[in-house]
Amino acid sequence: TQHYRITLLPGDGIGPEIMAIAVEVMQVVGQQLDLSFEFQEALLGGAAIEATGEPLPAATVETCKNSDAVLLAAIGAPKYDTLPRHLRPETGLLGIRAALGLFANLRPAKILPQLIDASSLKREVVEGVDIMVVRELTGGIYFGQPRGVFATESGEQRGVNTMAYAESEIDRIGRVAFEAARKRNKRLCSVDKANVLEVSQLWRDRITALSADYPDVELSHMYVDNAAMQLVRNPRQFDTIVTGNLFGDILSDEAAMLTGSIGMLPSASLGATNPGLFEPVHGSAPDIAGQDKANPLAQVLSAAMMLRYGLDQLIAADRIEQAVMQVLDQGDRTGDIMSTGMTLLGCKAMGAALVKA
Amino acid sequence: TQHYRITLLPGDGIGPEIMAIAVEVMQVVGQQLDLSFEFQEALLGGAAIEATGEPLPAATVETCKNSDAVLLAAIGAPKYDTLPRHLRPETGLLGIRAALGLFANLRPAKILPQLIDASSLKREVVEGVDIMVVRELTGGIYFGQPRGVFATESGEQRGVNTMAYAESEIDRIGRVAFEAARKRNKRLCSVDKANVLEVSQLWRDRITALSADYPDVELSHMYVDNAAMQLVRNPRQFDTIVTGNLFGDILSDEAAMLTGSIGMLPSASLGATNPGLFEPVHGSAPDIAGQDKANPLAQVLSAAMMLRYGLDQLIAADRIEQAVMQVLDQGDRTGDIMSTGMTLLGCKAMGAALVKA
Ligand SMILES: CC(C)[C@H](C(=O)O)[C@@H](O)C(=O)O
Ligand SMILES: CC(C)[C@H](C(=O)O)[C@@H](O)C(=O)O
Repeated sequence: TQHYRITLLPGDGIGPEIMAIAVEVMQVVGQQLDLSFEFQEALLGGAAIEATGEPLPAATVETCKNSDAVLLAAIGAPKYDTLPRHLRPETGLLGIRAALGLFANLRPAKILPQLIDASSLKREVVEGVDIMVVRELTGGIYFGQPRGVFATESGEQRGVNTMAYAESEIDRIGRVAFEAARKRNKRLCSVDKANVLEVSQLWRDRITALSADYPDVELSHMYVDNAAMQLVRNPRQFDTIVTGNLFGDILSDEAAMLTGSIGMLPSASLGATNPGLFEPVHGSAPDIAGQDKANPLAQVLSAAMMLRYGLDQLIAADRIEQAVMQVLDQGDRTGDIMSTGMTLLGCKAMGAALVKA
Repeated sequence: TQHYRITLLPGDGIGPEIMAIAVEVMQVVGQQLDLSFEFQEALLGGAAIEATGEPLPAATVETCKNSDAVLLAAIGAPKYDTLPRHLRPETGLLGIRAALGLFANLRPAKILPQLIDASSLKREVVEGVDIMVVRELTGGIYFGQPRGVFATESGEQRGVNTMAYAESEIDRIGRVAFEAARKRNKRLCSVDKANVLEVSQLWRDRITALSADYPDVELSHMYVDNAAMQLVRNPRQFDTIVTGNLFGDILSDEAAMLTGSIGMLPSASLGATNPGLFEPVHGSAPDIAGQDKANPLAQVLSAAMMLRYGLDQLIAADRIEQAVMQVLDQGDRTGDIMSTGMTLLGCKAMGAALVKA
């Protein structure tokens, strides 16, 4: 029996509901494949604020470090938006990324044939879209210093943030991206704003230099404004995209929305030494929390990503992904992906269908 | 006779070809409405680099200042991408924006019924889309100091740019946006990343404070990653958008591409005192330059925007816009917007059709 210790961060809103389904599914697959999972829960975001007064208690960081992988559901709620920045749920999320050194964020945006009509784009434009956005996650303007609001000489306030990347930061995310492209269709598009920003020019120069080590991967460069256009115009042109923290935040969400069903998309955040963190792309959906209406599939697919990228259990990951495909093929749908002729299920019933599959 | 002095910046690629059409159309409308235009040409971008060695000669700034409005076509070509930054065409464009203090960039993205099938989005999603993006154009990370590539203590290179906004910069673009929303559907969405960036929090606070002066305009706030998604999911939810320089660069291009025909979209850049600058959203298209294949309609519509926003000649602007609608209704198309059953025209023939209309 292979034994794994998994930290669960259910977080806020629909988080606990969808996490429960993912745990159930993992347990079933674990039994089948002789894997044993020890789950330990920890607090993050609003849930942590309620219990301890801070969004990322030190105990949570310890628990995460002391495990083989971390599964996060979702954090945040409108009521925390007025708190000072260091006490907000988002600060907890940024904090855990930094504490675990999770510099590489993998965000797949893949059109599922069963849900293609959910896209706002024409079928012939999105059919077959399969993009992997590799986003740098612990640098750039999210973490650059100096930052803050300062008084100018004339006495007015001035807000300042710093977008910065060192060569070594670019190199390590670049290598992750070239490796990812290598396992996919061997095309990597690096996105920057090198016609305006010096930090982007350094980014472009380093990625270009790295490409010498990956002659089998075809590298291209694109400005971020053009990338935002090209994702709408013809998303099939992209295979793997690599970009910085801010551009990756924007473009991975845009790419996700091309599928029309962000309730289906998982993501992985990986570092060099600490355990990886896996979470759905969608948010905590406070409006439907506690009503058994949430779609647990992105959470379940995040567990599959954890098995694949975090624990190297490819067969277990495949099985979970196949079960998701099967329930979709059966016509099982939660409200967010419902369409005529399909069967509307709640969160728990969807979980039961997955377990059966 | 009302007399206007107009600076023309034909720039690079298809620039001179499409500029010639716009001039022709303006002359016809001028004769009809007793307006006289004195056109003076100046150099910008690659054309300026070839002639003077720099992308923005001092004489160009003088000529622009010494006129009632500036009409720009497009700049840039791949061959300049390897020049040092201060000698690139884009630096000329950023330079003229700064020199004229053009802090407010208005970028409409409106679906034309005749071209709705050009969109990659479903008809029912884009029908009726009419968005105005108000982008701050002389501040933010485009111009913030410090910037550059510096050696760190460990000896590696580190690229740095600074995103900064002072209250007064936010207020003046905010007022332009509220005024613009007031003339439209009275809904303004301010886009920022206030959950991560201090500069965005200041932005959000100031825009919120300003809204007290515009009680008739409904203000909302949205994070930039969500805005990038919502533009794809349901663009009709937006009326007027206001945002900073970098987010505006990305979102205005994304919004433009929703229409499927960026060869149709004009833009205006306005300051407090100097003449405004008007230009198409599309680029210089070096691949089709000199082949009489370019679509001159965005350039012609930029001239209309110049008449409307720069010279307050609303009737002349209306006439030009009506002529564009008429040629589209007739089925006249350049290659980029061609579809079956329509008449394919070159750039000059399209100009002739406009003059006739
Ligand atoms: C919640 C927020 C801080 C976060 C980010 O901007 O990284 C989110 O948008 C994401 O993409 O995971
Ligand atoms: C060419 C480039 C410097 C420019 C910008 O980023 O502002 C362009 O993309 C634009 O939007 O006008």
